[in-house]
Amino acid sequence: MPTRIQVVEKILTANDQLAENIRKQLNSAGVFAINIMASPGAGKTTFIIKTLEALHGRLRMGVIEGDLATSIDADKASAAGLPAVQINTGGECHLDAVMVAGALPSLPLNNLDLVIIENVGNLVCPINFQIGSHMNVLVASIPEGDDKPYKYPGAYRGVNALVISKTDLLPYVPFNMDYFRKGVEILNPGLITFPLSAKTGTGMDAWADWLVSKVKSWKTNL
Amino acid sequence: MPTRIQVVEKILTANDQLAENIRKQLNSAGVFAINIMASPGAGKTTFIIKTLEALHGRLRMGVIEGDLATSIDADKASAAGLPAVQINTGGECHLDAVMVAGALPSLPLNNLDLVIIENVGNLVCPINFQIGSHMNVLVASIPEGDDKPYKYPGAYRGVNALVISKTDLLPYVPFNMDYFRKGVEILNPGLITFPLSAKTGTGMDAWADWLVSKVKSWKTNL
Repeated sequence: MPTRIQVVEKILTANDQLAENIRKQLNSAGVFAINIMASPGAGKTTFIIKTLEALHGRLRMGVIEGDLATSIDADKASAAGLPAVQINTGGECHLDAVMVAGALPSLPLNNLDLVIIENVGNLVCPINFQIGSHMNVLVASIPEGDDKPYKYPGAYRGVNALVISKTDLLPYVPFNMDYFRKGVEILNPGLITFPLSAKTGTGMDAWADWLVSKVKSWKTNL
Repeated sequence: MPTRIQVVEKILTANDQLAENIRKQLNSAGVFAINIMASPGAGKTTFIIKTLEALHGRLRMGVIEGDLATSIDADKASAAGLPAVQINTGGECHLDAVMVAGALPSLPLNNLDLVIIENVGNLVCPINFQIGSHMNVLVASIPEGDDKPYKYPGAYRGVNALVISKTDLLPYVPFNMDYFRKGVEILNPGLITFPLSAKTGTGMDAWADWLVSKVKSWKTNL
C-alpha cells in the first residue's frame, strides 16, 4: 500500500515541523514540557496528580490532558487547582503537534515552569508523533506484566525516563523485575527508572526531586 | 486533511471485503473465529491459554497471535499443544484482514471448530479493522480502573462479549464495579459479561460453557 505510506510520511514531516515550532515557543516562555505515555489504565492520571502535589511550591505547573472523548482527567487536574486543558482527539489513538498547538494558548505559559502532557492511553501509536515536548516519559504498571518491553519495543526505545507504577501490587501479581529490566536495558541502555506507587506515595520523592533538578538545570542552560 | 481520510476509507473498504472473504472461508470449514481485544497487559494471553485448557476435549481449537515483534504468545500456545500461528505486525497497532488471511493457511482449518485470534494490545485501533471473525470479545482488567468504558468508548461499543479479568485483584485496587457497569451499559446495552480470574480459575467455567454453546449453536445453523 505505497499510497498510504507516502501520506503518513507527509503527515509525520509536517507534524515534526510543527512540533519544533511548539518547542521554540515553550523555550521562549521558559517552559519545560513532558509527554507522558502509557497503556490505558497504567495509572497516568493518578501519577500526574500526585506529581503535581509533590511539586507544589517548587515548580509552577500546567497540564494538557489527551483523551478520546471525555474530560475526566482535566477535571481531576482542575480540581487540584491547576491550569488544565483537555484535548479530545475524537477517536484518534494519539496526540499530535496540531492538537497540542491548539491547546497551548489556553495555558498561561509565561507563569509556568512545567507543562505535563498526558497522551492517549496506547503503547503503540503515540511514540510516533512528536508533540513539541522536551522529554518523553513512559509509565509501565506492574499488573501489565513483565514482558511488555519485549512486546512493545517502540514505546520503551523512544523514552527518556521510565516510571514503574503500582509497585504496591507486586505481592499480588506475577512480575519478574529482573526479566523486565533486562528487556528495558536491551532497548534503551542506561534508561533512568523510577519504581513507585502513586497510591501509597512510595518512590514519589525520588521522581519529583529528579524532575525538579531536570527542569531547573534546563532553565539555567536556556 | 481530506487526502488522509480518503485513503484510510479506501483501506477500510478493501479490508472489510477481505474480512468478508475470510468469514466465508471459515464458514465453509465450519470454524468459528473470535477476535480478542484488550489493553496491553490486560491478561489476554493467559486468559486464552486458560480458555484453551477449559475447552480441551470439547472443541478443536487453533490460535492466531498478533504482536508487534515477538512470538512470546504463540510460543505459549504451542507449548499448550495447539496449532498456533504468530503474526508480527512490524509495528502496526492492530491486526487487519490481510494479516489474518496470510496466517490462516498455516492452520488445519478442516480439523478445527474454533480459532481464537489475539489482537495487538490496544484499546483504540483494533476495533476499527474487521478481521473476518464471528465475534469480538473485549478483555478489561480490574487494575486498569473503572473509568475505561468512559475513556475508550469505541472498544466497548463494538464488542459482543466482555470479559472482566484479574478479579482476584479487586481487594487491592480501587474499582467501583457499579460505575464500570453503568458505563458499559450506556455504550453497549445488554452486553454479556464474564467477571473472572484466569489466575485462580474463578469464573472460567461460565465463560467456557457459554463459548462452547455459542460455537455449537452456530455450527448447527450453518
